[in-house]
Amino acid sequence: MDLTRSPLALPFPDMPQIAGAVPRVARARYKDWDRCDLTFVELAEGTSVAGVFTRNVCCSTEVEMGREQVKAGHARALVVNAGNSNAFTGYRGREAVEQIMAQVADGLGCAHNEVFVSSTGVIGVPLPKDKARDGVAAVMQAEPCSWQDAAATIATTDTFDKGASASAMLGETRVELVGIVKGSGMIAPDMATMLGYIFTDAAVAPAFLQECLSRANAGTFNCITVDSDTSTSDTVLAFATGKAGNALLDGWDAPGADAFFAAVQDVCRQLAHLVVRDGEGASKFIEVRVSGAASDESARRVALAIANSPLVKTAIAGGDANWGRVVMAVGKAGEPADRDRLSIGFGGTWAARDGQPVPDYDEAPVAEHLAGQEIRVEADLAMGDGSATVWTCDLTHGYIDINADYRS
Amino acid sequence: MDLTRSPLALPFPDMPQIAGAVPRVARARYKDWDRCDLTFVELAEGTSVAGVFTRNVCCSTEVEMGREQVKAGHARALVVNAGNSNAFTGYRGREAVEQIMAQVADGLGCAHNEVFVSSTGVIGVPLPKDKARDGVAAVMQAEPCSWQDAAATIATTDTFDKGASASAMLGETRVELVGIVKGSGMIAPDMATMLGYIFTDAAVAPAFLQECLSRANAGTFNCITVDSDTSTSDTVLAFATGKAGNALLDGWDAPGADAFFAAVQDVCRQLAHLVVRDGEGASKFIEVRVSGAASDESARRVALAIANSPLVKTAIAGGDANWGRVVMAVGKAGEPADRDRLSIGFGGTWAARDGQPVPDYDEAPVAEHLAGQEIRVEADLAMGDGSATVWTCDLTHGYIDINADYRS
Repeated sequence: MDLTRSPLALPFPDMPQIAGAVPRVARARYKDWDRCDLTFVELAEGTSVAGVFTRNVCCSTEVEMGREQVKAGHARALVVNAGNSNAFTGYRGREAVEQIMAQVADGLGCAHNEVFVSSTGVIGVPLPKDKARDGVAAVMQAEPCSWQDAAATIATTDTFDKGASASAMLGETRVELVGIVKGSGMIAPDMATMLGYIFTDAAVAPAFLQECLSRANAGTFNCITVDSDTSTSDTVLAFATGKAGNALLDGWDAPGADAFFAAVQDVCRQLAHLVVRDGEGASKFIEVRVSGAASDESARRVALAIANSPLVKTAIAGGDANWGRVVMAVGKAGEPADRDRLSIGFGGTWAARDGQPVPDYDEAPVAEHLAGQEIRVEADLAMGDGSATVWTCDLTHGYIDINADYRS
Repeated sequence: MDLTRSPLALPFPDMPQIAGAVPRVARARYKDWDRCDLTFVELAEGTSVAGVFTRNVCCSTEVEMGREQVKAGHARALVVNAGNSNAFTGYRGREAVEQIMAQVADGLGCAHNEVFVSSTGVIGVPLPKDKARDGVAAVMQAEPCSWQDAAATIATTDTFDKGASASAMLGETRVELVGIVKGSGMIAPDMATMLGYIFTDAAVAPAFLQECLSRANAGTFNCITVDSDTSTSDTVLAFATGKAGNALLDGWDAPGADAFFAAVQDVCRQLAHLVVRDGEGASKFIEVRVSGAASDESARRVALAIANSPLVKTAIAGGDANWGRVVMAVGKAGEPADRDRLSIGFGGTWAARDGQPVPDYDEAPVAEHLAGQEIRVEADLAMGDGSATVWTCDLTHGYIDINADYRS
């Protein structure tokens, strides 16, 4: 099918090279298509790795193995297959992953468990081992490519290439971070059909890298939702090559630790927003802010109930300031709330306060806000100090078009 | 907007009169429309009542009051306002309900709390007291009407009138049950924008009527979902006028208690299915059967995860036997499951067994099944003895059309 570029797409940014992380792409022809679909990133010796993974019980072999591999903390290569998720394929799927790990490890002279494999695409078809073998052989001989080429090659139903970068000063040393991500449907906490990879030249101990990634993930990738469905393959990996020459970052007391964490969070937030911007059928980017909840976690649940409500999402698609549906969504979240203290607003204008419509409510500024592409929904529960922000997109005919026809 | 009759609609059945329950309808003109929108059912002295209500925290005044009123167990009248839900309207909404209760109670010479009021329609607009007053005065003078007229008058976005009936033998006495229901969007457990009313001429003690209704509700209304959104107004009330002349049914040991419960369950199941058949934009009626779960409750949660998944619902809309999305939905439910023991089928044909695609899987019979209007999705977890069945509809362009434009 022909996927139209999302109206919310952003141009691919200029992204620096990362010393010790070299991307290459090739054609494995996992599907009958004329595009690169195999991505290989070679990582310098001594590269640290951290990861967060889907909580879907029916996860893929790649997720199961990746979860184990990050515990060792070291990586020499990343391989991403696009067009076949290899999920729900039993022992045959596992054999294909092990074959790729062995082939790359032999080529680089590293341990098998330093080779990280991800796959994305159709569920239930074992990754063809012959295509994988030829593809891996080709990609290891290919010329290095740009981060945008790598971002394009990990994509499936994405309508634009997604990347982000940031930098941080660790003492006197400047370190660079780049990230690429793919994902547009089956997106929800915790982790969705989303594959994200972050590369930095900083020297970071694996345990601290994991701490930074997990913390950043909680407020970024775990706060986006497109359709409430969570995938069997979701993975975000962070690789730190150590080539920048900084003193090893091994905890919060190390010089520049806060700056490094801020940069990781910045890249994660940018990438997470890009996924929402490519939400299937999205025409509006929606930020849902909940305040006054009993706790931050309670606020997040309420915000997700709003962001996942088909009735809220279709109302916003239609530019309808239907705050009654937001009330409904707050109420169904099952979190502490009091109808008569609840306030609902759009883009900074309260429509309802303390459980009643605002007297002389002027819908004009709200209608104008909702006619735009960047929407903000606000709910104040007046119960406590908990707050949270999540991001989603509207629900449109485009979502139905894509998902009633595409065999994902 | 012009709502097209659901392709899944069923004709309104012949329904008997119920001695002691007399329906009437009138025009209150809650909206600018040319139809009856106020329903009044006068109930004989000594009528027992039971009810189940939405768990939405932001429920309407009507729900709050109804929940208290059923504790007393007696009813003399039901009033249903259509076109305005009166939810989220603070003290002004409450005053309108109290006015209706007082006006009807004065007319009938009964206690205020024997008058049950429901309202359905737009949220956040206080029910206009002047229209309610004139409407109630008119309806109490109106001629008795048919159950179909009553079903049509409680409706809002419904595209067809919904009713069901059953009978039971209590010893030598035959008792009749009729039910009417409205609802098509914002439908999900627990209880949705659904108003349902069951009337019987049986003599039933309030506590036993409540037990029958609560039990029946658990496997019927609480097992349907259209869009996972739960409303602020959902209510099912059962009224037993006692005019059939049976010995009072006051517990499971009374003659005919099982038959009566079966009839209540039958009416509830029929009404619940009718709501799904009028699901906004529905083109297919979907039964989701989960077996082999750790418990019945676990099976129900897994079944609802499947039934609420936009990706599953759009796949079925497209006639796509996309069992991978069912795997995904099972996995995201967060219930005990083992990927490598999971089996998925459609209409009696397994597509995947024990965590892998079925060898030589023939998609032809499945494709034929999915081309129909009555779809069955099966998931066996091979974990235990828990099972559950839930009902939903597909997700189509019609849902977007209705909800991006209609201010509900």
